[in-house]
Amino acid sequence: MSEFSIIKKYFTGSTKARSDIVLGIGDDCAIFRPCADFEYLISVDAFLENIHFPSCTSPQDVGYKALAVSLSDVAAMGGDPIWVTMALAMPQQNDAWLAGFAQAFAELAEQYNVQLIGGDTTRGPLGVVVQIAGQVPVGGAITRRGANPGDVIYVTGVIGDAGLGLKIINNEVSIDNELSQPLLNRLNRPEPRVQLGRALRDVASAAIDISDGLLQDLQHILDNSHVGAIIHVNQIPISIHYQNILDTLDGWQVPLSSGDDYELCFTVPPENQWKIESLAVSAGCALTRIGEITREQGLVCLSSDGQELPIIKSGFDHF
Amino acid sequence: MSEFSIIKKYFTGSTKARSDIVLGIGDDCAIFRPCADFEYLISVDAFLENIHFPSCTSPQDVGYKALAVSLSDVAAMGGDPIWVTMALAMPQQNDAWLAGFAQAFAELAEQYNVQLIGGDTTRGPLGVVVQIAGQVPVGGAITRRGANPGDVIYVTGVIGDAGLGLKIINNEVSIDNELSQPLLNRLNRPEPRVQLGRALRDVASAAIDISDGLLQDLQHILDNSHVGAIIHVNQIPISIHYQNILDTLDGWQVPLSSGDDYELCFTVPPENQWKIESLAVSAGCALTRIGEITREQGLVCLSSDGQELPIIKSGFDHF
Repeated sequence: MSEFSIIKKYFTGSTKARSDIVLGIGDDCAIFRPCADFEYLISVDAFLENIHFPSCTSPQDVGYKALAVSLSDVAAMGGDPIWVTMALAMPQQNDAWLAGFAQAFAELAEQYNVQLIGGDTTRGPLGVVVQIAGQVPVGGAITRRGANPGDVIYVTGVIGDAGLGLKIINNEVSIDNELSQPLLNRLNRPEPRVQLGRALRDVASAAIDISDGLLQDLQHILDNSHVGAIIHVNQIPISIHYQNILDTLDGWQVPLSSGDDYELCFTVPPENQWKIESLAVSAGCALTRIGEITREQGLVCLSSDGQELPIIKSGFDHF
Repeated sequence: MSEFSIIKKYFTGSTKARSDIVLGIGDDCAIFRPCADFEYLISVDAFLENIHFPSCTSPQDVGYKALAVSLSDVAAMGGDPIWVTMALAMPQQNDAWLAGFAQAFAELAEQYNVQLIGGDTTRGPLGVVVQIAGQVPVGGAITRRGANPGDVIYVTGVIGDAGLGLKIINNEVSIDNELSQPLLNRLNRPEPRVQLGRALRDVASAAIDISDGLLQDLQHILDNSHVGAIIHVNQIPISIHYQNILDTLDGWQVPLSSGDDYELCFTVPPENQWKIESLAVSAGCALTRIGEITREQGLVCLSSDGQELPIIKSGFDHF
């Protein structure tokens, strides 16, 4: 059973729905509406050694990324992040580690005007759990439920570099040192697309962040919106680093199924497409059209000559 | 360095204060004020195997207690719990364990009208992190900062049973099986004092829940309120189970320094003392006066004949 099946079987709907909870388990964030003006996006992410990050990760990178993945959840729903809490476990007190971790965490928090409002530190296996709250105007959140047939599918930035970074660490690919650093940076220092997410509030019909793999994450949009999609594989944006070694890898498997990029995948109704170009300029990252939403359910990947490719459905599973 | 020193050194004030955060790190909960009517109490607690609970703990007890300790944080500030998120790590998928855990968690959540709104499940060392939100009217939260000289100090229920329960598990005391079950229940199934906490909003000047030991937790009230206290040790309420074996233990050390009781310790201005009696009836638990707040800082423990007792400052330290 995958993480998603476990959540569905044991936790979704396990407690009574409250009227101030607009959306519970099953999206990037839950939506809490305490008052008439704003809604609050709530999300929690575990970030554990040897599961979510390799042991060789620096404390600075752990501190940065533990927060970045939470910021990305808020970005994927169009929110402004506002506060976080943190639970931190470490085998024994290590001041140098703590100092590096705390500094990187605080620097990123400052950058997004996020306040750390509470925490729990304890002895235990190295790991961090971050919970974040973001803010949107009432009704402003972008969920996974709003994609419609005919909507255009976009991704931000480039896809696959973080997965390549992980392959470098795991010695699964061999790349020159100077070329590997940008890929490792993409793995350890993903840039949460907060500014773009906010700008997508009135543009996108659905969105998700790519944490477990493009196909797996897009499938969540399709499932929740009860639609299908066609993806043009040759349109998936990959970096120059990735292109340089594409031939030595198993075709398009990495960008389609590797996680950790924390780019956004979102759908746009045709009437809003004209807004995309100006958004890409203000957001500071590429926005690339990779496919369309279809009425027939199912996910179809097409090659450049229009042939249907066998789908590699694997993505990161937390179990 | 203790947990509290680590938090103070690396995390308190590490990020810029926001105007919608009324109270940040350093109390049972942070206080978030998104709108004019209500404030929200936010708290996070890690609950890890072999640190916070022994390996022999049943999944039902883990599910119950992981939520109960979070409810207790909200109770200690006078809030109504409203929602929780959860991060759950386990070494491998274990359906029987998950079913027991989820059921006990959900039953307790239902009892307090708390909705589970989000979660993250992952492979990893067994442990749970629960974050909770509670609600109070604006200005209604009971913090650790409001104790004044002359205030009377109370505790709820009885103190020390959970500590005895832990000693039973660790084979540090020997007790008949039929006598040990109530003590193990007190360790594994603490009753969060939510109803009483809410009733204390207009009565108590400061409050905390006893998670790490009475003296250590009371000291947080004293530090935050810049006051001292006198405790009359013979007035500390202990259970009949505890009294029966008091002679075989090291005097008052267990009730003074053992944690996990999740009773409340709170201070009441003299003019509010008349309200306490009726509260005890409606709250369904004993409220016992154990001492007074003093102007001179420091914590003094007196025996029944008025002698000052040496203070055992130890309490549970998470490192």
